[in-house]
Amino acid sequence: MRMYDIIEKKRDGHELSKAEINFFIKGYTEGEIPDYQVSALLMAIYFQDMTEEERANLTDSMVKSGDQIDLSPISGIKVDKHSTGGVGDTTTLVLAPLVASVGVPVAKMSGRGLGHTGGTVDKLEAVSGFHVEISNDEFIGLVNKNKVAVVGQSGNLTPADKKLYSLRDVTATVNSIPLIASSIMSKKIASGADAIVLDVKTGAGAFMKDLDDARDLANAMVSIGNRVGRNTMAIISDMSQPLGNAIGNALEVKEAIDTLKGKGPDDLTELSLTLGSQMVVLAKKASSIEEAREKLKENISNGKAFEQFKIFLKSQGGDAAIADNPELLPKASYKIELPAKVSGTIEEIIADDIGTAAMLLGAGRATKESEIDLAVGIVLHKKIGDLVEEGESLLTIHANQDSVEEVKEKLYASIAITKNDVKAPTLIYDTVTK
Amino acid sequence: MRMYDIIEKKRDGHELSKAEINFFIKGYTEGEIPDYQVSALLMAIYFQDMTEEERANLTDSMVKSGDQIDLSPISGIKVDKHSTGGVGDTTTLVLAPLVASVGVPVAKMSGRGLGHTGGTVDKLEAVSGFHVEISNDEFIGLVNKNKVAVVGQSGNLTPADKKLYSLRDVTATVNSIPLIASSIMSKKIASGADAIVLDVKTGAGAFMKDLDDARDLANAMVSIGNRVGRNTMAIISDMSQPLGNAIGNALEVKEAIDTLKGKGPDDLTELSLTLGSQMVVLAKKASSIEEAREKLKENISNGKAFEQFKIFLKSQGGDAAIADNPELLPKASYKIELPAKVSGTIEEIIADDIGTAAMLLGAGRATKESEIDLAVGIVLHKKIGDLVEEGESLLTIHANQDSVEEVKEKLYASIAITKNDVKAPTLIYDTVTK
Repeated sequence: MRMYDIIEKKRDGHELSKAEINFFIKGYTEGEIPDYQVSALLMAIYFQDMTEEERANLTDSMVKSGDQIDLSPISGIKVDKHSTGGVGDTTTLVLAPLVASVGVPVAKMSGRGLGHTGGTVDKLEAVSGFHVEISNDEFIGLVNKNKVAVVGQSGNLTPADKKLYSLRDVTATVNSIPLIASSIMSKKIASGADAIVLDVKTGAGAFMKDLDDARDLANAMVSIGNRVGRNTMAIISDMSQPLGNAIGNALEVKEAIDTLKGKGPDDLTELSLTLGSQMVVLAKKASSIEEAREKLKENISNGKAFEQFKIFLKSQGGDAAIADNPELLPKASYKIELPAKVSGTIEEIIADDIGTAAMLLGAGRATKESEIDLAVGIVLHKKIGDLVEEGESLLTIHANQDSVEEVKEKLYASIAITKNDVKAPTLIYDTVTK
Repeated sequence: MRMYDIIEKKRDGHELSKAEINFFIKGYTEGEIPDYQVSALLMAIYFQDMTEEERANLTDSMVKSGDQIDLSPISGIKVDKHSTGGVGDTTTLVLAPLVASVGVPVAKMSGRGLGHTGGTVDKLEAVSGFHVEISNDEFIGLVNKNKVAVVGQSGNLTPADKKLYSLRDVTATVNSIPLIASSIMSKKIASGADAIVLDVKTGAGAFMKDLDDARDLANAMVSIGNRVGRNTMAIISDMSQPLGNAIGNALEVKEAIDTLKGKGPDDLTELSLTLGSQMVVLAKKASSIEEAREKLKENISNGKAFEQFKIFLKSQGGDAAIADNPELLPKASYKIELPAKVSGTIEEIIADDIGTAAMLLGAGRATKESEIDLAVGIVLHKKIGDLVEEGESLLTIHANQDSVEEVKEKLYASIAITKNDVKAPTLIYDTVTK
C-alpha cells in the first residue's frame, strides 16, 4: 500500500477502505508518512468529503492510535456529554451533579484549554481545595460511590488526532465536517463512555455559524458514534448570544449553583434539562424523555441535585460550604456596571466579542502559559429580546483592574439596542438521533 | 503575509495576487515555507484552478527563482520548440537544422531525461564524436556562425519548479493544468527564447490522453507565454500511435537524416513542416505560414537542410560522414522481424507499450543511473490504417540480446489488426494562438 495511491484515490472522489485509512493513520502517527503527503490528503478530503463509513473508520483508527480509558469497572451505563463550544457555557457544571442525582454515572475527563474562560477543570478550581489530580483507581472508586467525579486529562489519548489537528491548523483544513467530526468523536470514544450526548452549537458565537453546517456536523458525529458502537445523539442549540448570564470561572460556578437550586437563568436551565434528560434516557434511568425530564426537575425542586453537587465538591477536596455561601468564591475587586445609552429592545449580543472581553479581563487563556484570574468576568442582566431603559445596567463587569475602558468600549460595540420588536432566539433547534 | 492565508484564499476559490504568488514561490525556494503547507496549496489549486493572470504570475515567479539564460548576444529572433512528449518523436532532430537552413537561429538547450528513449542529447551522441559540453560563449558563437547549436542543460534554472515538481510527484498533484503549464513554460522562458512553438501531444501515448485536456493545456501555455512577453503558439498533434517509424536513439538519427533528405515517414515530415513553418513565421523569416512552408520544402529538395545538419554535427565534434552513410551509426547485433499473425488492417498501435518495449531493449532509462544502448530500438513498417498480410513484418526489432520473447509478446499485444476498414488518425488537431 502506498500513501500516494490513497491521496490520488480520495482526490478522484473514491471511498477509502478501512485498510487504507488504518495504513494512513498508523503510518502518520508512527512518523513513517510525511506531513506533506498528509496535508495533501487532508485538502483532498476537504474537497471530496468522506462517506459515513470512511468517517467511522477514520475515527476508529484515531481511537486505536493511543490509549483508551477503560470505564468498565464502573457499574451502569456511562454517558458523556460534549459541547462544540461557545461563550458562557456552564452546562457541564450543572449537568454532572444533576444527572448523577438520578443515578447516571458521570465519569468526566476534562481539560483546561484555551479560550474566553477556562475549561471545566479551571472553573471547578474556583472552589477552594478542589483538585482533579486523582489516580485512575480513585476516580473509578468515586464514580462508583458518588456517581460523579472529574479527572484531569492524562494518558496518551488519540495521538493521531493531536498530530492531525496541528497539521490542519497550519494548512487551512480545519474547517471540514468529516475531519471535525472524527476529531471530536475520537477523543470522546477514547475517553471510554458507553453513550454520548452532543451539544452542537450554532450562531455567531459558535464554531458553526450556520444552522445547516451545525446540522451536518451533528449528523456526522451521531453517525460515527453509532457506527463504532456508542449510543450517540445530538442537540443543536443556539449560540448567537452567550448561554446563561455569567462568563467567567467563579461567576459560572455561582451560576451553576443557582441553576441546581432552580434559580438559574431560563436558557441555561432549559438546555441543562434538555441535554440531561437525553443523558438519563441513554443511561436507561428513565424510559422516556418526559419521564427523565420530570426526574431531573424533581431533583432540582427537592434539593437532591444541589446536595449531589456538594458531595461531588467535597469528595475531590473542595470546600462544599461555597455551595451554601457563593460569597466564599474568589471575588473581583471592582464591580462596574455598563449602563444602556438608549432605551429600546436588545437586538444583538455578539457572543464572541463578549467572550473576548471576558478574556481581556483575565478570565481565559490566550496561550497555554497564560494565568487565569478565576474571579473576573461578566454577568449579563439583559438578553436578546429584553426591554432596557436608558441608564439601566446591561451587565456587570467583575474586574481586578480599575480601568476597564477598552473592555467597556468592546462591550458597547457588541450589544445592539433597537426601537423595533425583537424575538428571543430559538434555544433548541433540533434533536439528531441515528 | 502568511502562507496559511494564501492556502485558505485559494481553497475558497479566490484569485491569488502577484505578491502572494511571489511570497509563496520565494519562501518555498528558500526553504522558509514547509512542504506540508505547499502540498496543501497544490491540492487546493488542483481543485480550484488558477486564472490566466495567476498562471502567468506563477510562471514568472518560478523563472525568477533561479538563473535565466541570456541569448541576446545572438542576433535575430530566437525561437524554441517544445513537445509535451511522446513515443518516437524525432522532430527536434529534424527541425533544428531545417529551420536554421532558412535563417532561424536555433539555440537549443537540451537534456537526457528518463523515458522510452534518451533525450535529444542522447540521440545526438549516437553520432560519433558529437558532444554538447561546450561553454556558453562557444554555444552563442556557434549559433551566430551556423544558426544552430545544442548545449547540455546547465546552471540553476527554475529551482522552484524542481522543488515543486518533486513535491507534486509524491502528493498526487502532477495532473493539474495550471501546474503543468507553468512548469513547462517556466523552463522554456528561463532558457531565453524570444518565441516558443509548442507541440502538445494527445492520444494514448501522450501525457494528455484526451483532446479536450490537450486543448486546455495548449491554451494555458499559449496564454502564459504571451502574458510574460514571449510570442507563443501551439500545435495539437496526434500521439495515439508512435510518430514516424523509428523508436530508439541511433534509429531516430537515421530517420531524421531520411526526413531532411525528403525521404522520411509522411507523419514526421508533415509535423516537422507544420511546426517548422510556425517557427519560421515567429522568427520573421517569412510573412505567412504558406511562404514559410514553401521555403522549408525547398530547402529539403535542394539539399540545404541536409547540408545544415552536417555543418551542425561537425561544429560540435560529430562525424558528419554518418549523414551520408548512416550505416556508420551504432548498430544492434540482431534484427528480428515481427510477422503479422493474421491479415487485415492495422487498427491500433499502443504508443506507450511500443515505447516500453523499446525501453526493455535498452533504448531508454528507467532511472537516472541507467545506461542507454544507443543502437537498439524498433522500426515500424506499418501504421494505423495500413493493410497487412499474414506473415508480413509489422516491425523490426533491433536488439543486442538474442532472446526477445518478452518484447515480442508485448509488441504483439500492443498492435491490433482488424477485418474492418480503419482510417489513419488525424495528425494535426488544432493550432492555438493567443
